[in-house]
Amino acid sequence: MTKYGVLGTGMVGEAIASKLIALGHEVRMGSRTANNEKGAAWAAKSGDSASIGTFAETAAFGEMLFLCTSGTGSVDAVAAAASALTGKILVDVTNPLDFSHGMPPSLFTPSTESLGERVQRAAPKARVVKALNTINADVMVDPSKVPGDHDLLIAGNDAEAKAAVTSLLQVFGWKSILDVGDITGARALEAYVLLWVRLWGVLKTPNFNLKIVR
Amino acid sequence: MTKYGVLGTGMVGEAIASKLIALGHEVRMGSRTANNEKGAAWAAKSGDSASIGTFAETAAFGEMLFLCTSGTGSVDAVAAAASALTGKILVDVTNPLDFSHGMPPSLFTPSTESLGERVQRAAPKARVVKALNTINADVMVDPSKVPGDHDLLIAGNDAEAKAAVTSLLQVFGWKSILDVGDITGARALEAYVLLWVRLWGVLKTPNFNLKIVR
Repeated sequence: MTKYGVLGTGMVGEAIASKLIALGHEVRMGSRTANNEKGAAWAAKSGDSASIGTFAETAAFGEMLFLCTSGTGSVDAVAAAASALTGKILVDVTNPLDFSHGMPPSLFTPSTESLGERVQRAAPKARVVKALNTINADVMVDPSKVPGDHDLLIAGNDAEAKAAVTSLLQVFGWKSILDVGDITGARALEAYVLLWVRLWGVLKTPNFNLKIVR
Repeated sequence: MTKYGVLGTGMVGEAIASKLIALGHEVRMGSRTANNEKGAAWAAKSGDSASIGTFAETAAFGEMLFLCTSGTGSVDAVAAAASALTGKILVDVTNPLDFSHGMPPSLFTPSTESLGERVQRAAPKARVVKALNTINADVMVDPSKVPGDHDLLIAGNDAEAKAAVTSLLQVFGWKSILDVGDITGARALEAYVLLWVRLWGVLKTPNFNLKIVR
């Protein structure tokens, strides 16, 4: 049993937090305020292993953290929790989606910089691993929702952190995890989401993923 | 037998022009000047069906055109040929790669705009189809270089033009061609190339492609 913290109370945060509870872990879900409604509702239905707190309280609680806020909120969330993140693995699931130009969204980062890098800079002593941002929340925690072989892309500066995240994601059911390199690789993982949103529109289902064929 | 024009004399242009010659077509390769050295060398070795010319002469010659210049040169090439492109299909193979920040490259377009859209604006009466920009030149003209099933992504405003390009690409050997929508979809196809260059670095081969699994 491990203590996990999930920063963010949206669909992605709830999917990951509930999966970790189902796997028998203790999970705290964090938000800007200590009494977030969605977080409280999730904790109420999730049993004794579930709790809620501020971003900082959640970062202090978790041995490993998942960053699941909106893209626009992720740097602030990490900054609020930075001192409690020293040495800890922070799985960055966020995307820099910009809906201000209509649908499908664009990215608010230039292609020379990723949100993953901004997150790493906001908590320089955290071991940031970009992962799970390239699929739908349901698929993140149950990759068999997409039949057959397909790949999960990850990136980060810390090889040991990437290995630990890979181990956990294998427990989630991921069979093929493709490491694209250091945290600057988050530029590629986030850019791919521009294709993901187009394919979602065409395929009429969010339950798909890419496989790299060679 | 069809007359094709290939704008650009680099590796991509040569691969496509040579494939079209091998399929029994007449091909003109175009560049800024009428006597481009690489173009002349290609024509000399490619037989009577091969010729060279300026961008405008090549656009006038071809019933269908392939845009294969560098990303930085593509809008100028199309602008130079625009009047001869009226009503013609222009397959845009280019990528907005920016090498000024080092390797791997970034994109010189923001995520709210693609090079494909700039190309369409530079020749508003051409029927632009973004295609083939998501794989290596060798794979473009011989998809069996990547074994098994994998997808080619295309985008463009003109459904009839996309159908005609799809037919030709099937002759090249492409079995699965996935239309992501209008030319704004080029934003996604070009953004994916940021992932392509990372994967190239990791996989140590350019002979790979994506398959969308659902």
